[in-house]
Amino acid sequence: MGDPAGVGPEICLRALAEPSLLDHCTPIVFGDADILRRCAQHVGLPGPDLVLNSTDWPSKFHSLTQPAALDLKQFDATRLQIGVTTADTGRASFNYIQAAIDAALAGQVAGVTTGPINKEAIHAAGIDFPGHTEMFADRTRSRRWCMMQFAPEITCTFVTVHVGYAEVPQLLTIERVLEVIELSAEAMRRLHGREPKLVVCGLNPHAGEHGLFGDREEERIIIPAIELARARGLSVEGPLPPDTAFLPWKRQATDCFVCMYHDQGHIPVKALAFESAVNTTLGLPMIRTSVDHGTACDIAWQGKANPSSLYHALRLAARLASD
Amino acid sequence: MGDPAGVGPEICLRALAEPSLLDHCTPIVFGDADILRRCAQHVGLPGPDLVLNSTDWPSKFHSLTQPAALDLKQFDATRLQIGVTTADTGRASFNYIQAAIDAALAGQVAGVTTGPINKEAIHAAGIDFPGHTEMFADRTRSRRWCMMQFAPEITCTFVTVHVGYAEVPQLLTIERVLEVIELSAEAMRRLHGREPKLVVCGLNPHAGEHGLFGDREEERIIIPAIELARARGLSVEGPLPPDTAFLPWKRQATDCFVCMYHDQGHIPVKALAFESAVNTTLGLPMIRTSVDHGTACDIAWQGKANPSSLYHALRLAARLASD
Repeated sequence: MGDPAGVGPEICLRALAEPSLLDHCTPIVFGDADILRRCAQHVGLPGPDLVLNSTDWPSKFHSLTQPAALDLKQFDATRLQIGVTTADTGRASFNYIQAAIDAALAGQVAGVTTGPINKEAIHAAGIDFPGHTEMFADRTRSRRWCMMQFAPEITCTFVTVHVGYAEVPQLLTIERVLEVIELSAEAMRRLHGREPKLVVCGLNPHAGEHGLFGDREEERIIIPAIELARARGLSVEGPLPPDTAFLPWKRQATDCFVCMYHDQGHIPVKALAFESAVNTTLGLPMIRTSVDHGTACDIAWQGKANPSSLYHALRLAARLASD
Repeated sequence: MGDPAGVGPEICLRALAEPSLLDHCTPIVFGDADILRRCAQHVGLPGPDLVLNSTDWPSKFHSLTQPAALDLKQFDATRLQIGVTTADTGRASFNYIQAAIDAALAGQVAGVTTGPINKEAIHAAGIDFPGHTEMFADRTRSRRWCMMQFAPEITCTFVTVHVGYAEVPQLLTIERVLEVIELSAEAMRRLHGREPKLVVCGLNPHAGEHGLFGDREEERIIIPAIELARARGLSVEGPLPPDTAFLPWKRQATDCFVCMYHDQGHIPVKALAFESAVNTTLGLPMIRTSVDHGTACDIAWQGKANPSSLYHALRLAARLASD
């Protein structure tokens, strides 16, 4: 459900009432029923048709045939200030996620799509994770994972993500680049049902132009990783100059671009596919997708929030889970 | 004309015969007439209608009313191997550029558009410049210049360009960021005839998220430069997160994006406007634009080279020169 004070509750209410999602999945909102009811009243949306208690229901999810809210009772709805995230809203949103991860680990749900949380609120609650992805990695004890931004127009995976610009070069290793190539290939195989075509971007302008720019990161790290991936039978091209990698005809011929740093892939994804891109974590022992926006507290509980990012994230989770 | 062995001669021949360019300018090809004639025969294009000798003509360019080739006699056409750049072709292409710069400095031409040269050939001739732009800066004794990539969809200027990824942070200074903001504002004012709207990108993911990522380059360098620019009356927004800076509605509201490094701006320019983007150097005492491709020796002198990048570059030079 995301943070109770943000736009999470209202986009979840919309998802529960969206008939087109039912062809793909049976959504279950992990959150607080009272919050959803109060939000529904406030915004003028229908409340949840079906509310389940969290003690009996998770083991019976397989028999569920209609959208539902799972009432985790983490937050007293009467104490909520709309649009104001606090340590308490942060803790509640963290607990919703933990419950969803546990349900997925137990095979009770086919995948998890996360709503928007607020990092400062989570930190204020004394919970020390930089973001969603690290929570999933920790709870599932995953050591080998990467971020993917998926859209029909362009899909990118990331060797590094939320680190400063200057820290990237020292984080690149042959092992890590190879790991992300392999995680990308697995995900693309699952989504497309065939051996995928991957492109790996260089780090430097012009991919270093044979050592003219940079510290030969392409020759020392990226090319050896590509060669190891090819030796394992993968179709991998690169390292390509980062600017020409994303030309239109190259995008059409490529299933996934392996990017060295956050903005190398996020710039073209957001420029080309802002409406439809879905953030996914690869390498976890479960399917996990996420909305691509924050809590948007300035418009929370006003009925203005656009649920399309949540719908895209739910559809991709269902697609990844069904293959 | 660019390197005689590459696609430069044939795209110049096409430009000389292209009626639509005449509404914008009177093109004069600085090159070798024999090369152009041999190329015309080889490719099956008309040769240059008018060939001028380089001793008398430059002082009389103002009276010219039709496209022409200026015969600089730098290269013996009979010695050319098509598609093979050498120290001799590199030296000739360098000398064409020097002659064009001198003509522009003397006010004989309104601007210079450069064709494709080959860096290795230039270096083989013992000429030590990393590229075109540095040749112009040196010959015109310019100390304050920057690259601009211009397209109707998106325009970017660059604080750093052809340096390794890891070298960028140490090259960022308040003075340099301010300089590029000011050069961008001048160019946009000239092109659009009004005070422009500029966006400055951050260096780190999420523009550092208030110091969460990176070494506070935004707070230490970029924000002070923006504040100085605003104090001088410029409309400057930023530092924006580099990935959301280029969202469609942001692009529509922005005349120019000031980028911290090569791929930050080249990725969206090439992804969104590959066909129409023109490379320009701002801050020189003359107009200078460039084709956006290399010598393409693999298809040289075959009639396959697309002249549209040259046409776009000529039109932008004419537009910059006429304001």
